Amino acid sequence: MRATLMYGAGDVRVETVPDPKIIEPTDAIVRATRACICGSDLHPYHSMPGSEQGTPMGHELIGVVEEIGTAVTTVKPGDFVIVPFAFSDNTCAFCREGFQTACTHGGFYGSLEIPGLQAELSRIPQADGTLVAVPGIDERSELLPSLLALSDVYLTGHHAAFMAHVEPGKTVTVVGDGAVGLSAVLASRQLGAECIILMGRHTARTDLGREWGATDVVAERGEEGIAKVLELTGGEGSHVVLEAVGHMPAYEQSFGVVRVGGVISRVGVPQYERAPIGFGSLFGKNITLTGGPAPVRAYLETAVQQVLAGEIDPGRVFDRTLGIEQAPEGYAAMDARDALKVMLAF
Amino acid sequence: MRATLMYGAGDVRVETVPDPKIIEPTDAIVRATRACICGSDLHPYHSMPGSEQGTPMGHELIGVVEEIGTAVTTVKPGDFVIVPFAFSDNTCAFCREGFQTACTHGGFYGSLEIPGLQAELSRIPQADGTLVAVPGIDERSELLPSLLALSDVYLTGHHAAFMAHVEPGKTVTVVGDGAVGLSAVLASRQLGAECIILMGRHTARTDLGREWGATDVVAERGEEGIAKVLELTGGEGSHVVLEAVGHMPAYEQSFGVVRVGGVISRVGVPQYERAPIGFGSLFGKNITLTGGPAPVRAYLETAVQQVLAGEIDPGRVFDRTLGIEQAPEGYAAMDARDALKVMLAF
Repeated sequence: MRATLMYGAGDVRVETVPDPKIIEPTDAIVRATRACICGSDLHPYHSMPGSEQGTPMGHELIGVVEEIGTAVTTVKPGDFVIVPFAFSDNTCAFCREGFQTACTHGGFYGSLEIPGLQAELSRIPQADGTLVAVPGIDERSELLPSLLALSDVYLTGHHAAFMAHVEPGKTVTVVGDGAVGLSAVLASRQLGAECIILMGRHTARTDLGREWGATDVVAERGEEGIAKVLELTGGEGSHVVLEAVGHMPAYEQSFGVVRVGGVISRVGVPQYERAPIGFGSLFGKNITLTGGPAPVRAYLETAVQQVLAGEIDPGRVFDRTLGIEQAPEGYAAMDARDALKVMLAF
Repeated sequence: MRATLMYGAGDVRVETVPDPKIIEPTDAIVRATRACICGSDLHPYHSMPGSEQGTPMGHELIGVVEEIGTAVTTVKPGDFVIVPFAFSDNTCAFCREGFQTACTHGGFYGSLEIPGLQAELSRIPQADGTLVAVPGIDERSELLPSLLALSDVYLTGHHAAFMAHVEPGKTVTVVGDGAVGLSAVLASRQLGAECIILMGRHTARTDLGREWGATDVVAERGEEGIAKVLELTGGEGSHVVLEAVGHMPAYEQSFGVVRVGGVISRVGVPQYERAPIGFGSLFGKNITLTGGPAPVRAYLETAVQQVLAGEIDPGRVFDRTLGIEQAPEGYAAMDARDALKVMLAF
């Protein structure tokens, strides 16, 4: 089968690799209908050291179950399924508390044992706990982009808003106009926020943000951007800040605009370990910092119903569709910001 | 009048200074009944650079109103009052949201304009918003220690627990067996926590912690202490960690013992600005970090009623009472850990 591998920064190749096989009785094999490239895939695209072996990429997928292990009972061959970006048993203590990304039997894709999902076939561990079947959907459905968006990007934006307790009456500022930032706007609107400030400077993106509920767009960055948000909030700052980037300047912008007693919720994977949290940044103003890898599985059934009912259209973040063979071009386009988010068709 | 000043690390003196006067019409002058020494006073006691002038110390006080400005309406001379450690108008947007320590017209004691409260007489700005009168109390009341504890220490412990949403069913770990840590134990019990692990190694203190609701005491520190708490929580960690110290090792201990999806609530004033918050510490496990300077004023009326009704006895943190002239001895005793918390009588 064909699969996408990264051999180092900027070096993505599509190659023929052996088909995956069922290893554990709890596994399933899924044949890809659509996969996509994530903003977080751009971090290794910038910094991965060169290697002989290559890393199998991708963690967002919708497709059709091809084969199941002997222990799998909730999906069967032929089922159309959504594959969340992390696998989980959905029964351990952490899963039951809604944190499936920390499942004691769970994990992430992209290793040699559990390869990435930008591939024609994928082995999904813990299939019963991980996969969500969507009856009545096939490869011709117009809803494919929005269902694919539920495997990570939209529900990552939702997680940011959910952890921050977004609700009517709270001003929300979203830092970052990438696909996750825009999803955070849509999710905040769904949770009832009426005042949503989007910090971003790519007009095509912020225009989608406005359609999805952003009431103000701040193109400025750093001190100037902070001053603008403070002006928009009567000098008091934003109750909630959703940080959808992961770089230090985005975090600094976040504690610059957050209101006394407010919340910063991060879903951009931090590209730093240490950061300011003392009296001058978080503590003095009683700021709450929250967020982490989104437990997509916890939110998936509800979101599927919202997509099927036409209440949300998160698939609009995909502005380019390429065949799997063109995956390298897709990475380059996202890196150059020519494309917001690239969908891969099989 | 007599007042306590610090002239540098380890150099505390009691001196005669001019009596304070009403400056703003919103001021009141309060005559001290009891004041006390705070764990946070020990930070400058270790590190303050020497000066000619001296810094007027103290921020916890109960006493009797001596004089009021022309605009003051809620207290009158002769009223017995509790003085929270920060003053606030109690009407601005941040006060109304329960964050009086960030009041737009508020502030802290200990400058030359607004001297510290370890003094016979103190000028209290924003008296209407700050002071809470307690009818029926006089200088002979047995409740003086517990009422004094409401000016900071107990309600700082309560703030930690409140911000962390402590409730029945959640395991709480308290890092630090100082007066704030012990108060956090008592407050967590009040909020319904049934399993409270106290990390501390001073038996006299942890014994009071047990009386107040600690179900386990972990004397070990660092990796060993973390392992012990994980063992006590079935390897899963503590839903809530209340950090009542402020030094980096206490913070590191906190993210070592917190459960996936759990909360670290800090009320020990951080003696650092930058700290780990990336994937390996907070983000990967979806940890929430919260806390800050306690808005004592927000919680004061309720807590006064609890003290008057005999439901809580937070004054037990005071294990030594000295006259104001012996304040330097009080600092030394707390610094040497001979005393848990020193009350000053006038």
